[in-house]
Amino acid sequence: MVVDTGKASEALQLRSLVRRNGELELSLASVAVPAPKPDEVVVRVEASPINPSDIGLLFGAADMGTARQSGTSANPVVSATIPEGLMKSMAGRLDQSMPVGNEGAGVVVRAGSSDEALALLGKTVAIFGGAMYSQYRCIKAEQCLALPEGTTPAEGASCFINPLTSLGMVETMRREGHTALVHTAAASNLGQMLNRICIADSVGLVNVVRTQPQEDLLRAIGARHVCNSSAPTFIQDLTQALVATGATVAFDAIGGGKLAGQILACMEAALNRSATEYSRYGSTTHKQVYIYGGLDTGPTVLNRSFGFAWSIGGWLLWPFLRKIGPEAEQKLRERVVAELKTTFVSHYTKEISLAEALRLEEIAVYGRRATGAKYLINPNKGIAA
Amino acid sequence: MVVDTGKASEALQLRSLVRRNGELELSLASVAVPAPKPDEVVVRVEASPINPSDIGLLFGAADMGTARQSGTSANPVVSATIPEGLMKSMAGRLDQSMPVGNEGAGVVVRAGSSDEALALLGKTVAIFGGAMYSQYRCIKAEQCLALPEGTTPAEGASCFINPLTSLGMVETMRREGHTALVHTAAASNLGQMLNRICIADSVGLVNVVRTQPQEDLLRAIGARHVCNSSAPTFIQDLTQALVATGATVAFDAIGGGKLAGQILACMEAALNRSATEYSRYGSTTHKQVYIYGGLDTGPTVLNRSFGFAWSIGGWLLWPFLRKIGPEAEQKLRERVVAELKTTFVSHYTKEISLAEALRLEEIAVYGRRATGAKYLINPNKGIAA
Repeated sequence: MVVDTGKASEALQLRSLVRRNGELELSLASVAVPAPKPDEVVVRVEASPINPSDIGLLFGAADMGTARQSGTSANPVVSATIPEGLMKSMAGRLDQSMPVGNEGAGVVVRAGSSDEALALLGKTVAIFGGAMYSQYRCIKAEQCLALPEGTTPAEGASCFINPLTSLGMVETMRREGHTALVHTAAASNLGQMLNRICIADSVGLVNVVRTQPQEDLLRAIGARHVCNSSAPTFIQDLTQALVATGATVAFDAIGGGKLAGQILACMEAALNRSATEYSRYGSTTHKQVYIYGGLDTGPTVLNRSFGFAWSIGGWLLWPFLRKIGPEAEQKLRERVVAELKTTFVSHYTKEISLAEALRLEEIAVYGRRATGAKYLINPNKGIAA
Repeated sequence: MVVDTGKASEALQLRSLVRRNGELELSLASVAVPAPKPDEVVVRVEASPINPSDIGLLFGAADMGTARQSGTSANPVVSATIPEGLMKSMAGRLDQSMPVGNEGAGVVVRAGSSDEALALLGKTVAIFGGAMYSQYRCIKAEQCLALPEGTTPAEGASCFINPLTSLGMVETMRREGHTALVHTAAASNLGQMLNRICIADSVGLVNVVRTQPQEDLLRAIGARHVCNSSAPTFIQDLTQALVATGATVAFDAIGGGKLAGQILACMEAALNRSATEYSRYGSTTHKQVYIYGGLDTGPTVLNRSFGFAWSIGGWLLWPFLRKIGPEAEQKLRERVVAELKTTFVSHYTKEISLAEALRLEEIAVYGRRATGAKYLINPNKGIAA
């Protein structure tokens, strides 16, 4: 059993600060490692993914094209300018130095006095709750997901957001009475997981992608319905896939542009193929698009040619989990742990340290949020435990 | 008691026909008056409003700027051209001569043999179910709403759509946990009803209008919050009214353009005035816009600056009534009858006959769907009973 004996009292933590003057500043702060309360443990974080949701907090509304490097290579500082028109959206976080990193995994190196906390000592655990881009994270024992023997922190780093989001989509589909679903930006890590879930559960899935390589990637892992929005036949392809699957709910990571409306229009066209009577109000079958990301932050444009039985709205994991309650959430978590190396496996392009995360050349890569360019931060990389 | 002794065996009925070649044809057909079955009655229709929902069926996708008159003054025919690009939306009704008119009122002149039917003989009733632009309408007795003694057909002509829609909005607001609401195109007959309901029930209502006369009209009937979307201070005015009322649900008759998104953004801004903590995902309070009309058939453009707790979707009266069930619907209907001359009074610009409804100069007025230009058709005007 490898146990950090608790000598470290100071640890590095990545911070994001938006100043009132319109400057974003990323830096590494040295923070005290707190002594755990009876029901808490201290985790030495060894793997934490850079998810799109982390990038939002990390960069705020800054134009990263303006990013400048200062400080030293061990203690780098990155500054960037926030366009004046976007400062309004930053009002709630002005002049607060904020820790970043939604989820991660590592080894429990100190434990409080409770049985529950002591039981975790030396174990590899997955954790969620912010501030994971830190060498050490103090957290309640009950918030730790103990990983099976033989699981590395890197394998357990993405136990929450992508696995629970993709399971949450399928669960939402079922609870709202749909029988198949559509997913956009479908070649992402999350999209690949969703394909594995849908294949395992025999759920119809229509994947929408933008490029041929993305289409190839999904077909290679067994996706049956893949529609390329760049193809001239996209609208027909999508309608045909909707007829074949009967999908009436979609989860859209893109948000802006015409795609969400096109999905609704194609659903309506698919439903009307079997209509027997004319209705000016369109099909009576409810069609739903949930926007869960904002890869395109431009306006959502809906050409309303899909009757009145439709809805488009925001979807987030945490309100969904609150809605289904702790017992249902526990079942989803158990499935994630059981299938961590199969259904819920994540692929990373590169593992970087906290200091490397603040290098402009790395930011230029992971900041693009492109499919197949996912980074893992190891806050203890290159640092002796 | 005035009883039509049932001598009429033929009656005029207004018809709308979309031909496969892209022509719309409006005409008067002579149809047989059916003998009522035991549970049916025949109503001599004396008043039927031209609602926006009727105009949709009446004109289809035709460009009424191309309308031409033919036939005789007693038996007029109106033809108009449907733009080729819009013929797809007409696919479900091609070459079917369709009767028009959702609701109306008149006198029961024949009754089937059941007690329920016979009890209505000679009574003035409000009816719903299509084909009301007809001299006589055969309908199930249970579908008739018997009007109180001293109510004219004109007073009872609009018992269903506007009263149940405005009540349905307030009921939807309550059932979905909101405490106040927003309404657009708010100076309409429906909007005036909604103001009277909200004043009576002490419900906060934010009225959105486009002109000063519409604003004046609503203030004159007691509206407290009226925001003019043409005013340069509209966004601030709307946000302030949302802070004052706490409205988090809106019913939008317009559909196209930026208004629906502006309402969501102003709701978010109003909620964030009392926020204590920064959240990148916006307020956790759900914000809802229901689109129930399409006065602007252009695209709906959403600038998503309102977090993730939002939804926009279609809302129609009939699915709403199905959802609440017959008992709850009955309560709404009873309120309409009890308050028919007060809360639910409708104003009409003009009463016209079936033949007059097919005059180009009348179509030019009622086809505009402008506030304060509502027509009533009396299918028996100028025709001896």
